[in-house]
Amino acid sequence: MTHYAEEMDRLKESLLAMASHAESAVARAIRALVDRDEVLARQVEADDNVLDQYEIDIDDIAIHLLAKAPLATDLRLTAVAMKISQNLERVGDCAVTIARRSVDLGTEPQLKPYVDIPRMAAMSIEMLRDAITSFINREPAKARAVVPRDSDVDNLNRQLHRELASYMVERPATISRCLHLMVISKSLERVADHATNIAEEVVYLYEAVDIRHSAHKANEA
Amino acid sequence: MTHYAEEMDRLKESLLAMASHAESAVARAIRALVDRDEVLARQVEADDNVLDQYEIDIDDIAIHLLAKAPLATDLRLTAVAMKISQNLERVGDCAVTIARRSVDLGTEPQLKPYVDIPRMAAMSIEMLRDAITSFINREPAKARAVVPRDSDVDNLNRQLHRELASYMVERPATISRCLHLMVISKSLERVADHATNIAEEVVYLYEAVDIRHSAHKANEA
Repeated sequence: MTHYAEEMDRLKESLLAMASHAESAVARAIRALVDRDEVLARQVEADDNVLDQYEIDIDDIAIHLLAKAPLATDLRLTAVAMKISQNLERVGDCAVTIARRSVDLGTEPQLKPYVDIPRMAAMSIEMLRDAITSFINREPAKARAVVPRDSDVDNLNRQLHRELASYMVERPATISRCLHLMVISKSLERVADHATNIAEEVVYLYEAVDIRHSAHKANEA
Repeated sequence: MTHYAEEMDRLKESLLAMASHAESAVARAIRALVDRDEVLARQVEADDNVLDQYEIDIDDIAIHLLAKAPLATDLRLTAVAMKISQNLERVGDCAVTIARRSVDLGTEPQLKPYVDIPRMAAMSIEMLRDAITSFINREPAKARAVVPRDSDVDNLNRQLHRELASYMVERPATISRCLHLMVISKSLERVADHATNIAEEVVYLYEAVDIRHSAHKANEA
């Protein structure tokens, strides 16, 4: 195996490791919320620097690879890897947001059992995993299948947002808790957005068709 | 001038044009809010595809440039250009969010005169402009000066968030309007985040020091 191929493998391995860390950050943040586990929430926050470091390392490997890419497709793949890592770093920021809001929620009695939020989390994490797998295994069809799932998460977020808004009107004492839950729900919706961005890049990369901003209308930011 | 230098100029020109479009989208969205101008808000939403197209075009120019970059610094510069364009595309999403919420706000009487929001908008847009200028003109010092300004916008967002939250408790009839304003304020805070991300990339590029994730703690997502 050439040195180039080895370094490309190292890039993919780093991305996989980063992705698994990002997924786990989201999953643990949600667990901290559901179990009202402040220690875990603070760990998620503290561990975010691992993702930051991955992003820096992946950029370095990518720049080296760009310098000696034998083919235009290698350039594209490397450029996409950098974009994916930027998305994963922001998934980490979403996890931190969820963790912080969980800590805040821990200071007040629980509003109600969480049903939709863990469901949204599971959906978003699965989208993220599929998007990354499709990149590593060159599976544009799998990536393409991720994109429409974004609207399911969007819809759940919107529905939860509406429910929480009516709840606030009925019981103003719950306003601050409802706001925390809205932010958490929105953060999960953003995780799904990042997964969708990654999936769109993967389709573009392997099918050389730009579906970014076509299949999928501009999300709310 | 070599063909490579010409293409690099074209990359920079496209980025400048994209940045100016992104800035104007945010500014017009805020104007739509303040003037309660639904037509303008819907224009901002419709114009978002211009930014999407810029992102695709810039990626294409960048991939061409990567293929024949004579120096490692050219590779880095091109890679940073792609990251900047991704950030600008998301600034566009923020503008769309603001525009949509302005339309919603237009269906109800105005809560109060907007003071902090136009101020936050001006700050965020200026940060964005400085970050882009610092990239084009190779001014890492200017980029470095953008980073700490992010906390001013964060603080304004937090303060407004608190004010709106108390307002909701006092007058539950205003809850939906307050929620729209919270989302708008958060969107502006995200514009400032994107400006900060760009500035950090520029410092790294020209000073070859990675200040991402050090000077500036992980933002809430």
